[in-house]
Order: sequence, then structure tokens, then C-alpha cells
Amino acid sequence: MRMVDIIHKKRSGNVLSDQEIQFFVDGVVSGEIPDYQISALLMAIYFQGMTDSEQATLTMKMMTSGDHLDLSSIPGIKVDKHSTGGVGDKVSIPLAAVIAAMGIPIPMISGRGLGHTGGTLDKLEAIPGYQVEMSEAKFIEQIKRDKCAIIGATGNIAPADKKIYALRDVTDTVDSIPLIASSIMSKKIASGTDALIIDVKTGAGAFMKTLDDSRALAKALVSIGKGVGMQCMALITDMNQPLGRAIGNALEIQESIDVLKGNGPTDLEKLITAIGGYMVVMGGKAKTIGEGQKLAETVIHNGQGLKSFKRMIQDQGGDSNVVDEPTDILPQAAYQIDLPAKRTGIISKMVADEIGVASMLLGGGRQKANDKLDYSVGIYLNKKIGDPISEGESILTIHSNRKDVEDIKKILYDNIEISATAKKPKLIYETVGWSVED
Amino acid sequence: MRMVDIIHKKRSGNVLSDQEIQFFVDGVVSGEIPDYQISALLMAIYFQGMTDSEQATLTMKMMTSGDHLDLSSIPGIKVDKHSTGGVGDKVSIPLAAVIAAMGIPIPMISGRGLGHTGGTLDKLEAIPGYQVEMSEAKFIEQIKRDKCAIIGATGNIAPADKKIYALRDVTDTVDSIPLIASSIMSKKIASGTDALIIDVKTGAGAFMKTLDDSRALAKALVSIGKGVGMQCMALITDMNQPLGRAIGNALEIQESIDVLKGNGPTDLEKLITAIGGYMVVMGGKAKTIGEGQKLAETVIHNGQGLKSFKRMIQDQGGDSNVVDEPTDILPQAAYQIDLPAKRTGIISKMVADEIGVASMLLGGGRQKANDKLDYSVGIYLNKKIGDPISEGESILTIHSNRKDVEDIKKILYDNIEISATAKKPKLIYETVGWSVED
Repeated sequence: MRMVDIIHKKRSGNVLSDQEIQFFVDGVVSGEIPDYQISALLMAIYFQGMTDSEQATLTMKMMTSGDHLDLSSIPGIKVDKHSTGGVGDKVSIPLAAVIAAMGIPIPMISGRGLGHTGGTLDKLEAIPGYQVEMSEAKFIEQIKRDKCAIIGATGNIAPADKKIYALRDVTDTVDSIPLIASSIMSKKIASGTDALIIDVKTGAGAFMKTLDDSRALAKALVSIGKGVGMQCMALITDMNQPLGRAIGNALEIQESIDVLKGNGPTDLEKLITAIGGYMVVMGGKAKTIGEGQKLAETVIHNGQGLKSFKRMIQDQGGDSNVVDEPTDILPQAAYQIDLPAKRTGIISKMVADEIGVASMLLGGGRQKANDKLDYSVGIYLNKKIGDPISEGESILTIHSNRKDVEDIKKILYDNIEISATAKKPKLIYETVGWSVED
Repeated sequence: MRMVDIIHKKRSGNVLSDQEIQFFVDGVVSGEIPDYQISALLMAIYFQGMTDSEQATLTMKMMTSGDHLDLSSIPGIKVDKHSTGGVGDKVSIPLAAVIAAMGIPIPMISGRGLGHTGGTLDKLEAIPGYQVEMSEAKFIEQIKRDKCAIIGATGNIAPADKKIYALRDVTDTVDSIPLIASSIMSKKIASGTDALIIDVKTGAGAFMKTLDDSRALAKALVSIGKGVGMQCMALITDMNQPLGRAIGNALEIQESIDVLKGNGPTDLEKLITAIGGYMVVMGGKAKTIGEGQKLAETVIHNGQGLKSFKRMIQDQGGDSNVVDEPTDILPQAAYQIDLPAKRTGIISKMVADEIGVASMLLGGGRQKANDKLDYSVGIYLNKKIGDPISEGESILTIHSNRKDVEDIKKILYDNIEISATAKKPKLIYETVGWSVED
């Protein structure tokens, strides 16, 4: 078998055989296929796509290219949640605590941020002492004890994906549905969860800018998951404006704590209870979504979620006083600079990705994979789309360690609009793959 | 400027600026752009194409990436001919001699073969002693004296193309019109010719399998040439069956000599006089194509072409006795094995590329760029499409240095058809870019 023939087959719009996909993945892992042939195939896949069956095969071959977590010793239905990434999306953190508080095991293996999107691990590392690296044995032990743990990949999970992802990033082949789907699902299947809900973001701040593309990605993800016998569904949710009010690592931890104290922003709490509702049903602790969502709301408002969060932080080496005194424990930026509205009206636009870029440029995100983060910086939205505002009133607060933020202000002004009228955007567009009677 | 943004722009179907193309070519030559990004862009160009203006810019940037031959000291209009490559296509060799015999300088820089197609330099090297490497000064001196020379690239001609071509070969991005056109034309413009005729092959044995694709390539080539003020035209000619009767290096030299003795196969002589006719007009030695073709026929049949060929061989260090005693001088294969017809009828199909592959597998061509050649082997077609044949009669003769050629016979039988009826295929389909009144 020759790699150039596999490239030719895909380039010409044909379907690759299981053997060809295996040859490709093996060659990626062994290093026998040179990068220039890998990237040529990735670009051919970008243009020609893959069938459901090819996607599933690619996923499984990437999954079996590395280690596989065996979580069978943990009692109960293990549920997990993945987001395709957005701005201000800290959902996983309070959600894990909420689910755990209901006694459902949630073994979460998360990632870091790149570009305008943040990463769950980066956010958690804003808590002094929090360790995201952990052995498989300790991970399992903690889930048995606390029901939740959020860590980085252990061992050698999907090494083919690691290599392919790095190349996609520099060859502009990131936003290809089969490549996104196989990348996410190879890692999720390897991580050994029984059930998975995927939050597919749609809009300006998401990989998928249109509802059609988001739906196609959601269907691809769910089809792969169900294909391996996993309980799997997706929600398509809004990422035109940032989620919640906080963008930036420490700010988002603080907001996660706010949520678990029952004081979080409406959209954030609504999304957590929505996703949580499905997870509770998947985890066998409720019969209907309504019942599941009510349970999620309860543990948010009765402090059980917060207690779970505190225990997880403690068990992962973090300073759990953060839960009680967040501003004392979390790093704080030197300057809080308000962005005043230039006119009176209704906020009609807050372009999520550009606001994410602004936070990244303050030091809160990475331009390149090796960039160091400043956990203290970010942006706090005092207003969101649909909110009325008066001229001079603060739209948002920039948390910065540099005094001069004119460049950041320019980006923000360019990407926030105030109009005579505007309505709050939809938060949840649709579900994909949910077939339980309700 | 970042290469990933250039890839994104082309991948999304946009037009690259001159600065972006310059950045790309510079980065290819300096090695600053890694191969995986080059190949991703090549695949994006394969799918999205390039405008005439992008093609022209890419050509010029590749051309100026290296040396440029200055042929201005050679008196007269320098004419050159290029073929997009085929099976049995030895036209350049006798043609150079014919054109030189009319006093028109023809400075020919040729290439080697790869895969099923042969290369002019490889064929010439079948002549013992023939040197294809020559300094620029000696090349110019020989053209002044003999009017013709056929050599490999001197100095550092289009180094960007060298690198890009090597990557295209292993990433299946060879058959992209803007990439083919810029590759050919960057080298031809750098080689300093005043006029150029391009023989664009069409059919099974050609890069371009359909007339539409061949026409598009011809138009791209001519448009680039004319854009730099070169006299430039193209002929689209048949490559469904091999050209002439001989395939294989020494066999094709022998056939070239046959042509120059007036005993060549009809199709080969016809194509040489056709192309020659245009070149004579371009070179200013005839007013009309008819007149030019007559002149070409004359020097074929009065021995002047053969004399030119003999002188060129001598001047390039080759054994010029080959012209008089070809079978004594050229290497001969140990076995001549006939392929008998399995039925009586008319030859209706001889798939050019597969017959080229058969010759390659005998050792006459290269599977990889570094493969050594066996000059003596090849295939001689005793019959061509449209010829009647009786059961048991020899379709062709395999010239081999191994006794067992069952694998070769199988390929040949699979790709040659005998039917009840068949007609000879067209040899020349059309001209592109010819605007001289005739």
C-alpha cells in the first residue's frame, strides 16, 4: 500500500477502505508517513469529506492507536460532557460538580485553550495548587470517592490525533467535520465513558458558524458515539455572544462559583441545568428531562454542587478556600478598566470570537501552543445582547495587568453594537440524537 | 505574513496577491516554509484552481527564484518545443535536428522520465558517451555552431519548481493545471527562448485525459508565455495509443534515426513535420505553415536532418556512428519476445499509459526518481490502432533482459483490444494560440 495512492483515492472523491485508514493511522503514529503526505490527505478530506463509515473507522483507528481507560471498576453509569469550544464557556466546571452532587460519576478529561477559545484545564489552573495531571489509578480512585475529577489526558491517549491535530492547526484543515468528529470522539471513546453529551457551539465564536454546519457536526459526533454503543447526544447552543459574563481564567472560576452559589448569570445557569437534565437521565437518576433539570437546579441552589466542587478542588491539590473567598485566593489583575457606551440604546451585537481574541491579547489565552497564560486577566461583561444601556455606562470591564489597553478597547468597540432595538438571542437551538421518551 | 493564512485564503477559494505568492515562493526556496504547509497549499490549489493572473505571477516568481539563461548572443529567433509527456514520444530528438538543419537555433533543455512517461535525456543517454550536462557557455557555443543542443537544466533553474515538483509527485497534486503550467513555463521562460511550441498530449497516456482539460492546460500555458512577450502556441495531440512504434530508450533513438532517414512511422513523421512547420514560421524561415511543413519534410528526406543529428551527438560526446549502425552501437536486449494476437480482427485499443508501465517494469523507466535505467529494453509495436491482424501474428515485440515476461504479457494483453472494426484515431486535435495568417 502506498500513501500517495490513498491521497489520490480521497482526492478523487472515493471512499477509503478500512485497511487504507488503518495504514494511514499506523503510518502517522510510527512516523513512517511524512508530514507532507499527511497534510495533503487532510486537505483532500477537507474538500471531499468522508462517509459516516469512514469517519467511524478513522475514529476507531485513532482511538486504538493509543491507550484506553478502563473505568469498569467505577460503579454506576459514567457520564461525560464535551463542548466544541467557545468564549466564556466554563460550563464543564460547575456542571461536573452538579452531576457529581447527584451521585453520578463524571470522569472528565479536558483540554487547553488555543486562539480565541478558552480551555477547562487552564481555567482550573487559575486555582492555586490545582493539579490537572493524575495517574489513571488516582483518577479512578477520586471518581469513586468524589464522583468527579477533571484532568488532562493520562498516558498515551489517541497519539495519532495528537499528531494530526498539530498539523491541522498549521495547514488550515481544522474546520472539517470528519476531522473534528474523529478527533473528539477518538479521545472520548478512549476515555471510557458510558454516556456522552456534546455541546456543539454555533455562531461567530464557534468552529461551526452556521446552524447547518453545526447540525452536520452534531450528527457526525452522535453517529460515531452510537456506533460504538455509547449513549450519545448533542445540543446545539449559541456562541454568537460569549456565554455568561466572565471571559478569562480566574474570572471564569469566580463565575463558576457564583453559579454554584445560585448567583450565576441566567444564560449560564440555564445551559448547565439543560445539559445537566439530559445527563441525569443518561446516568439513570431521573426518568424525564424535566425531572433531571429540576434535580440539577436543586443541587445548584441547595449548595450540594458547591460542596462537590470544593471536594474536587481539595482532592486535586487546589486551595479550596477559593470557594468561600474567591477574590482573596484567585489572582487579580492590576487594572479594572471600564468600556463606556458611546450611545444610548440596546446592545445588539457582541461578536464572541473577537471578544475572545481581546482576552487572549490581554494574556488570558494562547496565540501559540506554548504561550504562558496570565490567569488574572480577562473581560467581564456588564451587559449582554438585549440589555438596554445609557451613553457613558460601562458595557464591560477589562481586567488587565497593563495600563494602556487602547488596542483592546478598539477591538471591543469594533465588535459590540448598540442599536435602537434588539432581542436576546436563542440559547439552545436543538438536540441531536435524543430518543428517550419524555 | 503567515503561511497558514495564505493556505486559508486559497482553500476558501480566494485569489492570492502577488505579495502572497512571492512570500510562498521565497519560503519554498529558503526552506522557511515547511513541506507540510507547501503540500497543503498545493492540494488547496488543486481543488480551487488559480486565475490567469495568479498562474502568471506564480510562474514569474518561480522563474526569478533561480538563474536565467541569456541567449541574446545567439543570432536569430530561438525556438523551442515542449511536450507535456507521453509514451513513445521521442519527437523532440528528430525535431531538434530538423529545425537546426534549416538554420533555426533550437536551444533545448529537457527532462527525465518518471512513471509511464519517458524522458528525452534518458533516451539520448542510450547513445554511448552522450553528455546531457553542459555549462551555459558551452551550450551557447554549440547552438551557435550546430544550431541545436539538447541538455539537462544548467545551473540553478527555477529551484522553487524543483522543490514543489518533488512534493507534487508524492502528494498526488501533479495534475493541476495551474501547477503544471507554472512548472513548465517557469523553466521555459528561464531558459531564454524567443518562441515556444507546446505539444499538449491528450488521452489515456497523458496527464490530461480529456480534450477539455487538455485545452484548458494549453490555454494556460500559451497565456503565460504570451504574457511575457514570448511567441507561444500549443498543439493538442493524441496520446491514447503510444506515438510511433518504439517505446524504450535505445529503441526510440533507433526510431528517431529511422525518421531522419525517411523511414519513420507515419504518425511520428506527420507530427514532426506538423510541429516543425509552425516552428519554421516562428523562426522566420517561412511565411505559411504549408511552406514550413514542406521545408521540414524536405530536410527529413534529403538527409540534412540526419546530418544535424550526427553533428549534435558528436559535439555532445556521443558515438555518432550510431546514426549509421544503430544496432551495433545501441545496447540491445537479450530477448526479443513476440506477443501473438489471440484472434483475427482490427486493433481497436492500445492503452498508452499501461504500455508505458509495461516498458517501465522491464527496466526502461523509473518507478522512483533514483531508479537506474536499462536502456536496451522496451516494446516495439508491430501493429497500431486501425491495423488488421491475424490470429497468431505478432502485435508487438518485447525487448527484455529477462526471459520470463509473463507479467508484462498480461499487462499488454489486458490493454490491447482486437475488434471487428476500428478506425485510426486522430493525431492532431487542434491548435491553441496560433494567430499568424495562413
